[in-house]
Amino acid sequence: MTLAALPKPKLGEPYLLTPGPLTTSAEVKEAMLRDWGSWDGDFRAMTRELRSRILAMLGAGADGFDCVPIQGSGTFAVEAMLASFVPKTGKVLVLCNGAYGKRAVTILEYLGRAHAVLDMGDYLPPRGADVARVLAEDAAITHVLAVHCETSSGILNPLQEIADATQAAGRALLVDSMSAFGAVPLDPSVTPFEAAVSSANKCIEGVPGFGFVVARTAALEAAKGNSQSLSLDLHAQWAVMEQTGQWRFTPPTHVVAAFLVALRAHEAEGGVAARGARYANNRDVLVAGMRRLGFETLLLDDWLSPIITTFFCPADPNFDFTQFYDRMKARGFILYPGKLTRAESFRIGHIGHVDGAVMQAVVDAASDVLTEMNVSSAAPSTASLAERQAHGE
Amino acid sequence: MTLAALPKPKLGEPYLLTPGPLTTSAEVKEAMLRDWGSWDGDFRAMTRELRSRILAMLGAGADGFDCVPIQGSGTFAVEAMLASFVPKTGKVLVLCNGAYGKRAVTILEYLGRAHAVLDMGDYLPPRGADVARVLAEDAAITHVLAVHCETSSGILNPLQEIADATQAAGRALLVDSMSAFGAVPLDPSVTPFEAAVSSANKCIEGVPGFGFVVARTAALEAAKGNSQSLSLDLHAQWAVMEQTGQWRFTPPTHVVAAFLVALRAHEAEGGVAARGARYANNRDVLVAGMRRLGFETLLLDDWLSPIITTFFCPADPNFDFTQFYDRMKARGFILYPGKLTRAESFRIGHIGHVDGAVMQAVVDAASDVLTEMNVSSAAPSTASLAERQAHGE
Repeated sequence: MTLAALPKPKLGEPYLLTPGPLTTSAEVKEAMLRDWGSWDGDFRAMTRELRSRILAMLGAGADGFDCVPIQGSGTFAVEAMLASFVPKTGKVLVLCNGAYGKRAVTILEYLGRAHAVLDMGDYLPPRGADVARVLAEDAAITHVLAVHCETSSGILNPLQEIADATQAAGRALLVDSMSAFGAVPLDPSVTPFEAAVSSANKCIEGVPGFGFVVARTAALEAAKGNSQSLSLDLHAQWAVMEQTGQWRFTPPTHVVAAFLVALRAHEAEGGVAARGARYANNRDVLVAGMRRLGFETLLLDDWLSPIITTFFCPADPNFDFTQFYDRMKARGFILYPGKLTRAESFRIGHIGHVDGAVMQAVVDAASDVLTEMNVSSAAPSTASLAERQAHGE
Repeated sequence: MTLAALPKPKLGEPYLLTPGPLTTSAEVKEAMLRDWGSWDGDFRAMTRELRSRILAMLGAGADGFDCVPIQGSGTFAVEAMLASFVPKTGKVLVLCNGAYGKRAVTILEYLGRAHAVLDMGDYLPPRGADVARVLAEDAAITHVLAVHCETSSGILNPLQEIADATQAAGRALLVDSMSAFGAVPLDPSVTPFEAAVSSANKCIEGVPGFGFVVARTAALEAAKGNSQSLSLDLHAQWAVMEQTGQWRFTPPTHVVAAFLVALRAHEAEGGVAARGARYANNRDVLVAGMRRLGFETLLLDDWLSPIITTFFCPADPNFDFTQFYDRMKARGFILYPGKLTRAESFRIGHIGHVDGAVMQAVVDAASDVLTEMNVSSAAPSTASLAERQAHGE
């Protein structure tokens, strides 16, 4: 699949193959060429459109939900979700298989909220049966926090199983859908959840500056008084927005304007399904091409997300990631370093305003760089591959 | 003073006479026309330049200080300052004469930090002697929070007196310099303080999306463990930035790029002194012109800030603020509603990429609108003027 109107970024500007910030369209950025008064009626209409467009992405289950944008990075939105929906007497089970699960644990430590951790290591998926077991053993757990796509490995976690197990146990599911929302379906009538967060600069292809929460209206109402932070109080943000149409505190007006253009482009492309299909094709072109060069993925195919893929570094002693990064950047592609604790790896994101042709160009550039670096094979070490087999299935 | 290269915003785009978001230059906005990888070396260099340019604005007293940008609106930065520098056993005296002092009190209530309030009502200035008296009476107070320019009335609070009284009493001063920093001098060797905050979209004339703190390095070191919020932990933000050159969590990359252009323009204009002089001239042109129409300011001249001015609504029964706002907007000027509890008022900001010629155009438009609205005199009611006299001096 090739985007008909996919222009190359301006001369000399590299593609960002990172999981947000990512490459955005020229139209999205051009929306930032004017100033908006945040109190003015024009801007309030923009906020209204933003909220209703996000809600519509939930599909059939959107009824009874509302959308609340919140200033700051995605982590601010995750913290706001945990601080606002988990009462001070609550307890959260964090399903952890990478950096973002760990970050949720750190947030809960700061907040002083009780929590348990199901730690799956670097990349193993938390399965529904695991969740059911932990919930059966600990009646104090009120909420489950799942990371939809854990970008530290690139795994798309089995959210349906997790949601089903959480609902069966009568607990509430909170979803960090940061890098998946807008490209992977998240319909609460299919996958029951209480609240989910994402941010402007992920699969909707806006620029960074705010995040947003989609949550059951009943949960937003019940959140009053839970947050220890004025800035991150989602109940207050929601209540003021409902009453006045305004953000409580100065919104990133230009980023919001860019996001609206991105939202309209998302719909024009065909919504969540089409966005997800383009990203899946990006991944398929990339992974097939990289495998032809000898590279291998950390994850078996079943667990590869349409968002980002982790590749093992080649075992060849001539390979050096910093040099590889710099040479790829010189060719116009910014890669992402790895985050594994045990195996040398790097990541290539396939979200953003990029298509299969860009992915093929990445593969071609990688091929050239390997030749320049005198790397005869991109195959990983046996130890690396053993890591991969360990994750089973 | 007229800015040589002050272009009108794009056709149909109004001037924002609001205290941020405000009107920015075309160059500032054009800096947002590309995407940046937040992990990449190029962006780290931008963050480094941003921090050192902000620090340089402190003047001779910059030594021993550091600058820490933080995602979110200005309120997020105020909350981060209070949460990070006031230990859980601390107590804050809030000097309150408007909405932003009140907001600081609300933040402290959320944080569960002990506090006392010196409440001066809608617009009376907290004087050094008042501060000295309260501090002498309450030994538990560890910190004083002052609002530099309280934009709810437009008053420029007497920060020098406050800083001197706070230092004499051996307490630490925290400054909400949101709408003043970059246009009003804030040199810690002259006006001793512990930390101050501002944001990107105020007197430096960037676009909204992050705030920043300037603080004694010793205070940043001592802040470890104070914050109950991961996102708003200034110690952690500073420590990671020092170690890696990166923001802990995704920065608003485009907003940062715009801010760098704004910082360079600030220096090119002549720094804090020149920026303050342009804004003071803006105010003088505006106030003189509005007074010729019969309007009167809430504050006596001594207390008028170069940032924003509050005018009483005319007593004439034909005057209606909503209609005035809409007609001024149709002429290309977005005003700001009033925030006084006792007198009808509105505000006109004079910061941003505007000069005396723009201010004169505002006055001319106001004159036309009054005629259209059949308002024969813009003079305030006697009751309003009595409000003004009550503030004395």
